[in-house]
Amino acid sequence: KVQEQIDVKQIADKIISGDRGYLSKGITLIESNASHHRQSANELIQHILPHIGKSVRVGITGVPGAGKSTWIEAFGKTAVSKNYKTAVLAVDPSSSLSGGSILGDKTRMEFLAHHPDVFIRPSPSSGTLGGVARMTRETILLCEAAGYDLILVETVGVGQSEGIVRGMTDFFLLLSLTGAGDELQGMKKGIMELVDAVVINKADGANKEQAMKTMHDYNQILRFLTPATKGWKPRAYTCSALYNSGIEEIWDLIFSFISETKESGEFQKRRSRQAVDWMNQLVQIRLNETFFIEEKKRQMKNLEEKVRQHELSPSEAVDLLFEKYQ
Amino acid sequence: KVQEQIDVKQIADKIISGDRGYLSKGITLIESNASHHRQSANELIQHILPHIGKSVRVGITGVPGAGKSTWIEAFGKTAVSKNYKTAVLAVDPSSSLSGGSILGDKTRMEFLAHHPDVFIRPSPSSGTLGGVARMTRETILLCEAAGYDLILVETVGVGQSEGIVRGMTDFFLLLSLTGAGDELQGMKKGIMELVDAVVINKADGANKEQAMKTMHDYNQILRFLTPATKGWKPRAYTCSALYNSGIEEIWDLIFSFISETKESGEFQKRRSRQAVDWMNQLVQIRLNETFFIEEKKRQMKNLEEKVRQHELSPSEAVDLLFEKYQ
Repeated sequence: KVQEQIDVKQIADKIISGDRGYLSKGITLIESNASHHRQSANELIQHILPHIGKSVRVGITGVPGAGKSTWIEAFGKTAVSKNYKTAVLAVDPSSSLSGGSILGDKTRMEFLAHHPDVFIRPSPSSGTLGGVARMTRETILLCEAAGYDLILVETVGVGQSEGIVRGMTDFFLLLSLTGAGDELQGMKKGIMELVDAVVINKADGANKEQAMKTMHDYNQILRFLTPATKGWKPRAYTCSALYNSGIEEIWDLIFSFISETKESGEFQKRRSRQAVDWMNQLVQIRLNETFFIEEKKRQMKNLEEKVRQHELSPSEAVDLLFEKYQ
Repeated sequence: KVQEQIDVKQIADKIISGDRGYLSKGITLIESNASHHRQSANELIQHILPHIGKSVRVGITGVPGAGKSTWIEAFGKTAVSKNYKTAVLAVDPSSSLSGGSILGDKTRMEFLAHHPDVFIRPSPSSGTLGGVARMTRETILLCEAAGYDLILVETVGVGQSEGIVRGMTDFFLLLSLTGAGDELQGMKKGIMELVDAVVINKADGANKEQAMKTMHDYNQILRFLTPATKGWKPRAYTCSALYNSGIEEIWDLIFSFISETKESGEFQKRRSRQAVDWMNQLVQIRLNETFFIEEKKRQMKNLEEKVRQHELSPSEAVDLLFEKYQ
């Protein structure tokens, strides 16, 4: 069997020159689960590493129906009008289950989908959140190397996905609904301490008044919580993506955040910290993959059940699990 | 060299019979770092396992100066007046650095320190938070087997210690100061989503009015956040441990929480979940200990620095780290 030859250097050069086709090709390589592709993917990243770091990375979260696609369409329009090459990515851990991706439906981003300065890539549909996270992080690097100035990473709040997107972006934004009152009830645990801003969308028509109230409620909480970014006071804002009002203000907000954090050094510190955190996460994933071969998984499951029933102490269970390992 | 003989079965029987001396002996065994003691400690736990689970475990956190010792003294007094045998433990990751423990100074718990139905044990002063956590968890089990009905676990909010104490208790309480205004500013990240109640202490004299305002502010936040315990609405309360006012109300609160969660099954579910979570944490600790021998630690540190400088991608660094391992 002849192993396929991948010219990693060529792909890297083409990506750096801004070739969209090769950018897609590079991402496909990154998303491949074949182990011989992993090595090529790592080499590819290593090649493009000197060309990364120049974009602004913005994470966007919000429940389904919060209008993320419409908001990204409006925000992306603003970006291209200012000559910002824009990439739109997604982290959607549910897409491997549902078979679809939150960015799969490009109809709500019709303008962006056809614009030459915009690159849209749906969420990878790998099985694990860790896998999706790795791929998206590496895709960000490729997009940066390809000259994209603004990278938007969308996520739906499933499992740990918000923390993961926060960990790969400079600015993190929660898009919130308004209308029904009680919007803040059932808010996801910890989410408010991840955000740099809350944006209440659909603040138009009859909704406007309720949106102001929701904004006030969010500000009440934000006032008390520890900010996600040192030296930055997160606040709530309203906008209407549909009527394109308040979008320019969010743009200004994000870019004043970027210049402030660059000046204070927090921007660069966060990027370094994110890379190291990611490395540490990869180490943990790898350690577990190496240890938890099929037999160990079965054994762990049995022991876990005994611990659940208080038949075995956790310490004793772990001793049993590691007996054969050491 | 003759290995010392430890009669684990005897220690277990004595503990179960309520012997305080043997309880201390058992805890010392648990806190030993000698590897041959680890095995005896595990056997000891395995012996007492059928006798655990009958206590109420309450975690208490608060910044230094919030009056934790005074509060515990007052609360413990209430407990013994109701014939509850009470154990007071601590998780203080700083004690190994400072050489002292938050419970080291028993002068503020003079009543409890001399009461025959009260057992006080300062924080173990092991090097790592993981180590302290293991020891305290296992000490809880020994105290339960010895017939203690109420177990209070005190912690000062250093590092992850609050999450760790939340993970070993049924009810978790934040003791807060009042007086200076702005108490809630600089509140620790995530703490509000761990608590079942906030208690504003020192609500006496000139402080009383400010305490009511602080209580109101806490309730404002608690209203919006996801509760730590399913079906329970955490709220803020005031008390004065010094003048023993409001203590009985907290007692009633905690015990209505216990009966509600026992009725809904959440109590038992949490205990099982806590045991399994703990097992999982131990697995991760063990995996890391096994992998990170001295040479690997050095290698990791070097690679981390290169990742921090964006010279190496995290994926590539991890590949290099694992090269010799697989």
